[in-house]
Amino acid sequence: MDFYPVVIEKLIEEFAKLPGIGYKTAQRLTLHILNLPKEEVEEFAEALVKARGTIKYCSVCGNYTDSDPCAICANPNRDKEYICVVEDAKDIMSIEKVKEYNGVYHVLHGNISPMSGRGPEDIKLRELITRINDNVKEVIVATNPNIEGEATAMYISKILKPLGVKVTRIAHGIPVGGDLEYADEVTISKALEGRKEI
Amino acid sequence: MDFYPVVIEKLIEEFAKLPGIGYKTAQRLTLHILNLPKEEVEEFAEALVKARGTIKYCSVCGNYTDSDPCAICANPNRDKEYICVVEDAKDIMSIEKVKEYNGVYHVLHGNISPMSGRGPEDIKLRELITRINDNVKEVIVATNPNIEGEATAMYISKILKPLGVKVTRIAHGIPVGGDLEYADEVTISKALEGRKEI
Repeated sequence: MDFYPVVIEKLIEEFAKLPGIGYKTAQRLTLHILNLPKEEVEEFAEALVKARGTIKYCSVCGNYTDSDPCAICANPNRDKEYICVVEDAKDIMSIEKVKEYNGVYHVLHGNISPMSGRGPEDIKLRELITRINDNVKEVIVATNPNIEGEATAMYISKILKPLGVKVTRIAHGIPVGGDLEYADEVTISKALEGRKEI
Repeated sequence: MDFYPVVIEKLIEEFAKLPGIGYKTAQRLTLHILNLPKEEVEEFAEALVKARGTIKYCSVCGNYTDSDPCAICANPNRDKEYICVVEDAKDIMSIEKVKEYNGVYHVLHGNISPMSGRGPEDIKLRELITRINDNVKEVIVATNPNIEGEATAMYISKILKPLGVKVTRIAHGIPVGGDLEYADEVTISKALEGRKEI
């Protein structure tokens, strides 16, 4: 397609690289950008570079953060006796929205999936194990309620139980096969409430 | 929402400003950006600024261009006797894809819509009139086949006929109520073929 000037084609291509964005949508977004005031486009570009440049993973829990440790790990009011294990950093936001959990988190950055060739060594499990000490009362496994998430939960339970820590799994208030990211607050609240030892 | 660091929230907001992108999608796109290599994000940001900074409208036809006049207007092989009138610059691409039309274009940058309070003075109609001279054989009106597009076409015909130029309308090969942007090549080809004087 050489009907557009190169700089436009380039921007369309960049948009089309994003997940869930096809060529037509990329074209629409690009034409929208061309009609925006210059300052707004520059602000968008700056936000992109700044977000990617500033953000790192918390060295303690693996959450996205701009300071290390992250705001949750650094907060003296958070109860370090409870560690909630999630697959993705974005799941932390889903749980924080409920405003009921006051412990800390651990992000696995993935799950165990033998089907896709992802084993325990591909996720931040070693880092979780090193966090377990006498001060940790309970590890709440909040991986997604699908096959991979369940397998990951079972594996974590098997690994951590010998260390003498209580391992619980959030209840299936969240529809099985669903995604934690899209669960509503009430469902997440019920899931936290009904957690049981595994 | 203060669960994400400010720089992440800012990028989510920026994505959410784009048309058709809600908060959830913006969040997903942002997390995708955070996982990209730094250079790729910088390339994306640069493409944004460059596209917006370089692109202007062709002073002759109103097409998006990085040089003035645009590549189509500047091409000596394009037949200046035919002017195809479109609502948006992106419609030019839809027609160019067919590879059958060899004339030039005129972008109205909108349409006439009394319902929305857009009159003839709100689109590039005056600019079209000044382009009409003895060398122009035909003006093909390729506005969208909806109420506004038809009204615009009728108005253009009424204004240009006294100047002694032939005004044609693309045939309704394109589904009525549809959008030129989403028409396939064959439909656009049929529409060009079956054009009739208005």
